[in-house]
Amino acid sequence: MAIITIVTDFGTEDYFAGTIKGVMLSRNPRAVLVDITHTIPPHDILAGAFTLGAFYPYFPPGSIHLAVVDPGVGSDRRPLVVEAGGHLFVGPDNGLFSIIFDRDPAARVRHTTNSEYFLPARSSTFHGRDIFAPVCAALSLGVVPERFGPIVTDPVRFEFTQVEVAPDGTMLGSIIHVDHFGNCITNFAWDQIRERSRGRTLSLQVRELVIDRLLTHYGEASGQPLEPFLIPGSAGFLEISFWCSSAARQLNVAAGEPIRLLVR
Amino acid sequence: MAIITIVTDFGTEDYFAGTIKGVMLSRNPRAVLVDITHTIPPHDILAGAFTLGAFYPYFPPGSIHLAVVDPGVGSDRRPLVVEAGGHLFVGPDNGLFSIIFDRDPAARVRHTTNSEYFLPARSSTFHGRDIFAPVCAALSLGVVPERFGPIVTDPVRFEFTQVEVAPDGTMLGSIIHVDHFGNCITNFAWDQIRERSRGRTLSLQVRELVIDRLLTHYGEASGQPLEPFLIPGSAGFLEISFWCSSAARQLNVAAGEPIRLLVR
Amino acid sequence: MAIITIVTDFGTEDYFAGTIKGVMLSRNPRAVLVDITHTIPPHDILAGAFTLGAFYPYFPPGSIHLAVVDPGVGSDRRPLVVEAGGHLFVGPDNGLFSIIFDRDPAARVRHTTNSEYFLPARSSTFHGRDIFAPVCAALSLGVVPERFGPIVTDPVRFEFTQVEVAPDGTMLGSIIHVDHFGNCITNFAWDQIRERSRGRTLSLQVRELVIDRLLTHYGEASGQPLEPFLIPGSAGFLEISFWCSSAARQLNVAAGEPIRLLVR
Repeated sequence: MAIITIVTDFGTEDYFAGTIKGVMLSRNPRAVLVDITHTIPPHDILAGAFTLGAFYPYFPPGSIHLAVVDPGVGSDRRPLVVEAGGHLFVGPDNGLFSIIFDRDPAARVRHTTNSEYFLPARSSTFHGRDIFAPVCAALSLGVVPERFGPIVTDPVRFEFTQVEVAPDGTMLGSIIHVDHFGNCITNFAWDQIRERSRGRTLSLQVRELVIDRLLTHYGEASGQPLEPFLIPGSAGFLEISFWCSSAARQLNVAAGEPIRLLVR
Repeated sequence: MAIITIVTDFGTEDYFAGTIKGVMLSRNPRAVLVDITHTIPPHDILAGAFTLGAFYPYFPPGSIHLAVVDPGVGSDRRPLVVEAGGHLFVGPDNGLFSIIFDRDPAARVRHTTNSEYFLPARSSTFHGRDIFAPVCAALSLGVVPERFGPIVTDPVRFEFTQVEVAPDGTMLGSIIHVDHFGNCITNFAWDQIRERSRGRTLSLQVRELVIDRLLTHYGEASGQPLEPFLIPGSAGFLEISFWCSSAARQLNVAAGEPIRLLVR
Repeated sequence: MAIITIVTDFGTEDYFAGTIKGVMLSRNPRAVLVDITHTIPPHDILAGAFTLGAFYPYFPPGSIHLAVVDPGVGSDRRPLVVEAGGHLFVGPDNGLFSIIFDRDPAARVRHTTNSEYFLPARSSTFHGRDIFAPVCAALSLGVVPERFGPIVTDPVRFEFTQVEVAPDGTMLGSIIHVDHFGNCITNFAWDQIRERSRGRTLSLQVRELVIDRLLTHYGEASGQPLEPFLIPGSAGFLEISFWCSSAARQLNVAAGEPIRLLVR
């Protein structure tokens, strides 16, 4: 049973996602295709990278993850096959795999050059269909990564989960994602914050607002829809939330907003 | 072949739905996962309950239905496993299963307490991933409901499909759902209305408007986009519709709007 | 392994798509169901026809394609089974299969009248569930098209991919689709344009604007978000695009907009 997950910014209203499913099923009718999302904001590589990092660990080892957020399609940006953490990843070399590389320093990255695995007729605008999908199908049939092309040592990589620590101990970070419920996900990894904050007080500053209420579940804020709080989020990062309302809208912030965290 | 359907308010743009699929496929790679919808309006338990009631009878007996609309996640609301009508249902105890209970008075409901079936590391904000998905996977592998926990005799239950009958015979109900096309679904079950209205005239009052045109298919109203009509809907309830336009927008109503039905 | 793809205008927030999946899995639990899209604009038959034409060739021969954009549901419009190009298509007789008929003049079309394959209880508003889905399930189990009903020789057919050529050689066409990225897909098939434009200059007029920059991939326009260009699109038609922005919004046009193409 070969599992292929699919993350794209194709939207759900077009033929794009359906077409890449057809290509994969034409080459491996037994592949199990799993839609993750097709509504990464168009061309938003960071949102794609965040999403990929959040779901893939929950799939079985050996799963293949197809990720297409690809504003540089048709240019000389490299198509990649990545082996990391026991999983396989296929997509463009534009930073999409940044969190994968953070998690597994031993990741092996290859430039997919072997056109024998591509569709015979290739467009310059839809490599998801013409290159990435057939490469995933080949991987799902057992073709080894070595077959696709040479090792890449300098894949594009964003450091957006990196946190800077100021001399006074303030951690300088940012909101890296706003989810469907309006929760604002920061780049402060809860594993690290928890250690440093044991028995002390966390306070997070976003614009002029200081938030120092730390909850463990949304229900603790029940009935207080106008009070922001911090919460360890399910993707492993500290989040800013409001009870049953959108933190992003309440605070008027979006991904990219700088924030500061003090532990006292 | 174990079928697991998935209904959530997670939205389609995040990692949430993909993650619960990964959890289930990690534990049962042969499970057949079926997306029903991930765009129940956030925290709208009634919309989730209506949707669940509308689709599940069309699945084969033995199917497992995962329903997560869960504003109380992390609080003491109980996670449930429900056996009803030959199907299995998994989700929070907050009214989501109201229509299931209406349909099968012999439904058996269990409080899912046996953490041996949960993910080892659990968050307080994502029980869909950490509790409900692995419980579904276990059910799909043949674990019997008894294993998950004790019987619950007082599950949360909304009476939103109940219709009140006034002394003069007027039925007092409400719009319980607005669908993608803007059709307004009432809580008047067509099976019951049909009996009472044979050879008589139905008239439905919504706000100041009285609608007494009853059609059997949309096409009968062809070319009359400004005339409301009643129609027995595909979910088994009487609906208010306009031809090729949104009844909800035309009438400026939403779920919850009270309505009155007269049979004369 | 029987593959059934699904294209509808049902939206993703309702029980409609889930219900037809349940009907098909109830009758053939081994069918592989593939969501293409459920967000064809409501009642937009042309958008459905375009989408169907764009993805089906990428599926394996023998695939079954269920297409439901059906404003005439319940009226006397005929339900069809179409055999064309090695694929099977199921849906209403309203023009949805126009491009399929363009591609395969030998297409065999049948009026689905044999109610033995329908759901026993049928509504007048949801033939996707009651007629089309069980017919697809029967086809996936090997029932031959002949079983469903008599040949139709006059299916509804739109000529929307036809291009008119004026006496001076100007080609008169239209925008037939706007995709998720805002690219405007014209009805000028690139195969035909390429021949005629070899060594000559293409210029496309939309409203008052003349566009004569022809690129082969989006990246060539990198950094020039305000300059429209033409590009051979992945569906096989000439497209109007802007780099990282919506051509439809920039030009304020929608599907149906007339355009003129000159080759000099």
